[in-house]
Amino acid sequence: MVRAEYTVTGMTCAHCIAAVRDEVLGLDGVTDVDLDLTAGSLIVVSAAPIPADAVLAAVDEAGYTAVAH
Amino acid sequence: MVRAEYTVTGMTCAHCIAAVRDEVLGLDGVTDVDLDLTAGSLIVVSAAPIPADAVLAAVDEAGYTAVAH
Repeated sequence: MVRAEYTVTGMTCAHCIAAVRDEVLGLDGVTDVDLDLTAGSLIVVSAAPIPADAVLAAVDEAGYTAVAH
Repeated sequence: MVRAEYTVTGMTCAHCIAAVRDEVLGLDGVTDVDLDLTAGSLIVVSAAPIPADAVLAAVDEAGYTAVAH
């Protein structure tokens, strides 16, 4: 299992969290997503590594910006 | 046409605006809703007056708090 950590900026409420969660969970191979609004942290769980570009694009699609750790 | 003004607290992003809009537009007789995130203002447009209690309940249902002006 792979856990990749990102920081997401711009999320202000539970709806933002839900929007990011939906997009990232929609990526092929992602099995779980852990988001923390206060910390702006996003942990992406998958069996095999997910390309960071795909995660960043999914967050962008939700309307926010992420950086990989 | 009646325009009733309210102040809504707790809205932090466009998703919040959409949630309040959906609930208030769902009230019988409401024809338009004008929301401003920065000002926290909510204007409810209708042909006949809408009871303030109904508007406050709709905002509460969306997860926010409103007061009538």
